[in-house]
Amino acid sequence: MLTGPSIYPMNLVVQKYGGTSVGSIERIQAVAQKVAASRREGHQVVVVVSAMSGETNRLIALAAEIHTNPSAREMDVLVSTGEQVTIALLSMALHEEGCDARSYTGGQVRILTDNEHSKARIQEIDGHRIRDDLEAGRVVVVAGFQGVDEQGNITTLGRGGSDTTAVALAAALRATECQIYTDVDGVYTTDPRVVDDARRLEKITFEEMLEMSSQGSKVLQIRAVEFAGKYQVPLRVLSSFEEGPGTLITLEEDDDMEKPVVSGIAFNRDEAKLTIRGIPDTPGIASTVLGAISEANIEVDVIVQNVGHDDTASLTFTVHRNDMSKAEAILQRIAKQLKATTVESDDRIVKVSMVGVGMRSHAGVAATMFEALARENINIQLITTSEIKITVVIEERYLELAVRSLHSAFKLEQQDLVE
Amino acid sequence: MLTGPSIYPMNLVVQKYGGTSVGSIERIQAVAQKVAASRREGHQVVVVVSAMSGETNRLIALAAEIHTNPSAREMDVLVSTGEQVTIALLSMALHEEGCDARSYTGGQVRILTDNEHSKARIQEIDGHRIRDDLEAGRVVVVAGFQGVDEQGNITTLGRGGSDTTAVALAAALRATECQIYTDVDGVYTTDPRVVDDARRLEKITFEEMLEMSSQGSKVLQIRAVEFAGKYQVPLRVLSSFEEGPGTLITLEEDDDMEKPVVSGIAFNRDEAKLTIRGIPDTPGIASTVLGAISEANIEVDVIVQNVGHDDTASLTFTVHRNDMSKAEAILQRIAKQLKATTVESDDRIVKVSMVGVGMRSHAGVAATMFEALARENINIQLITTSEIKITVVIEERYLELAVRSLHSAFKLEQQDLVE
Repeated sequence: MLTGPSIYPMNLVVQKYGGTSVGSIERIQAVAQKVAASRREGHQVVVVVSAMSGETNRLIALAAEIHTNPSAREMDVLVSTGEQVTIALLSMALHEEGCDARSYTGGQVRILTDNEHSKARIQEIDGHRIRDDLEAGRVVVVAGFQGVDEQGNITTLGRGGSDTTAVALAAALRATECQIYTDVDGVYTTDPRVVDDARRLEKITFEEMLEMSSQGSKVLQIRAVEFAGKYQVPLRVLSSFEEGPGTLITLEEDDDMEKPVVSGIAFNRDEAKLTIRGIPDTPGIASTVLGAISEANIEVDVIVQNVGHDDTASLTFTVHRNDMSKAEAILQRIAKQLKATTVESDDRIVKVSMVGVGMRSHAGVAATMFEALARENINIQLITTSEIKITVVIEERYLELAVRSLHSAFKLEQQDLVE
Repeated sequence: MLTGPSIYPMNLVVQKYGGTSVGSIERIQAVAQKVAASRREGHQVVVVVSAMSGETNRLIALAAEIHTNPSAREMDVLVSTGEQVTIALLSMALHEEGCDARSYTGGQVRILTDNEHSKARIQEIDGHRIRDDLEAGRVVVVAGFQGVDEQGNITTLGRGGSDTTAVALAAALRATECQIYTDVDGVYTTDPRVVDDARRLEKITFEEMLEMSSQGSKVLQIRAVEFAGKYQVPLRVLSSFEEGPGTLITLEEDDDMEKPVVSGIAFNRDEAKLTIRGIPDTPGIASTVLGAISEANIEVDVIVQNVGHDDTASLTFTVHRNDMSKAEAILQRIAKQLKATTVESDDRIVKVSMVGVGMRSHAGVAATMFEALARENINIQLITTSEIKITVVIEERYLELAVRSLHSAFKLEQQDLVE
């Protein structure tokens, strides 16, 4: 069993601390103590930090007083100061801990991005300055969320940016591990607020993590997980505030231990279901309907099409609850054109997914799942499956009951099969 | 007569606005209007700004909570965010005024400095990026007070840094004028709080300005004036809050108009006088006494040595008032060694100086000065002279009377002789 970062002697770790973890002078000092402890264990440490919580919003409010639609380039110049303040303060706190440290902005590192201000993508990282500092025994503190384009303009990476910075640095430096410190102590088999004996996972694969994230588990930004998977950077989620090994997100191929069939249960309350019935069953119907929805910038999730006994078809799909009325209005319009019989909508539904790479080689997961739900008299409205996931849409009021039943049916409260 | 910046059509001006001038959103908007007006007059404009007033102190206080003696490198990373916030906000305010604008940090420009963190000196400026923007019709907004060393570390320039940035940029870009916007509307013949009819000077030379500054006129930082003189950058001091042409500080050689004999009267209340009497009149005595003072890092200003009728000498000098007790203790020690008779100190004195390049070619300035003081029964304790300055030390209580009498004796309330 893994016992956490300390089992890797003399390795290079990238640690990322978010805005809440550096939200006050005291918390910055606590982070410095954590980093200094990693140094004492013999690791080389690169730290990526966000702006102190509240700071980015303060800066955005200043801009809003001046311009209703401020230039994206200048917004990046403005908000990037938030992380710059944190890197300087954390470096000072590390000095106070007797730890040699040096700070770098995104531009100084240099983290080269494209020029899409406020949502730039990292293209290249020059790791040689960081490596020189690490060799000299220093902790390197890097401003997350920011970079610089080829012309030297300051850019920011958009949502989840600091996680992405940490993963990209870990990839560029070939770090042993990228550790994302958050306010939870790891990834759980399901939400502990719903299932009392939900268990922290020691390990989860990138694919599983992506499915968990996209299904509502908000521990990590999807983009950072994708990035880590693409560059094969072992990612660990752990708590800024408590001790513990957290959850390691890693490549399946890296894992020679027997995997459990199901890793976790994700769910999402933010969905609504729409159905259009009695449409002619001819080619191109789905694209007519869904094309119109997508043109309105509404994202569609689960999609199911059926042919009825009268040679007409029905199409059902889910959207974000906020988009339901808009989607319904579009469906009503299309229904007239297509002479469909009815349009139905329902925002009292939820999506529940079993996620696990072990499903690939195990039949019977679906059967166990449906059986568990049937035992509780929970009706399944929609089903979709992928290689590592089975998703059902059910009535909202059954959510907790369903998740608890499935958690227990798959024995997720028990230790991983890995040892 | 000069009527201000608008007489130069289609020229390049560098404008500098200090922390008070950009101290709130409303003031930043007012600066944007001033800059936009310069653009409409057809000038190319580069703007240099400081941090919003209070911001630098806020950042320093954060650092003080973490470390009693924070690293100079990290302090520069921290405080340089102050100007970075201002450049972004001012650029947005210029966009709101319909003025195309782009902001640059010191590092982006790039303003290359040595690596003396917190008191770095500018070594080189790369103006090509700025010139490209100006050619494209943009206002360029540059963060004052900051630069970058050869290794790419962020540096700050220390006191008066933003003035220095503006002058250095003006020199590098061969600007027509460097305009320093402050809370006064120009350089006066003397302090208007002391003399009611003190008059704003249209023009003053660098040499005069240096003497006025070093004698207590705090309009401009001496370093920026020296810099402007060295690189022959015409400097104009004017108000952020009122209209008006301000005062142009320029090269004497540039001036083919007849100069007034005296340009202004400077004074300084921060001095104290020390005298050591009855010392043997032998070579090396002055250096023994003043060497000991200077070893204690005390700066000495006016120095006068006299030989008395008994073949002993007395040495008198002035120091900053804060240094008087320390200097007195040193003198007492030396007095014993040298068997001097007495040590006296007086912190109720002030220094008053007449400044003017016209003195060079006019005899009789000293006579007029001493006569005016004698008429008021003001005793002169010390006199020193330079090519463009006569300084007297008098009792503090006569300061206002002396300055008013001199102002009137030299007819400084009347218009410059220049036309």
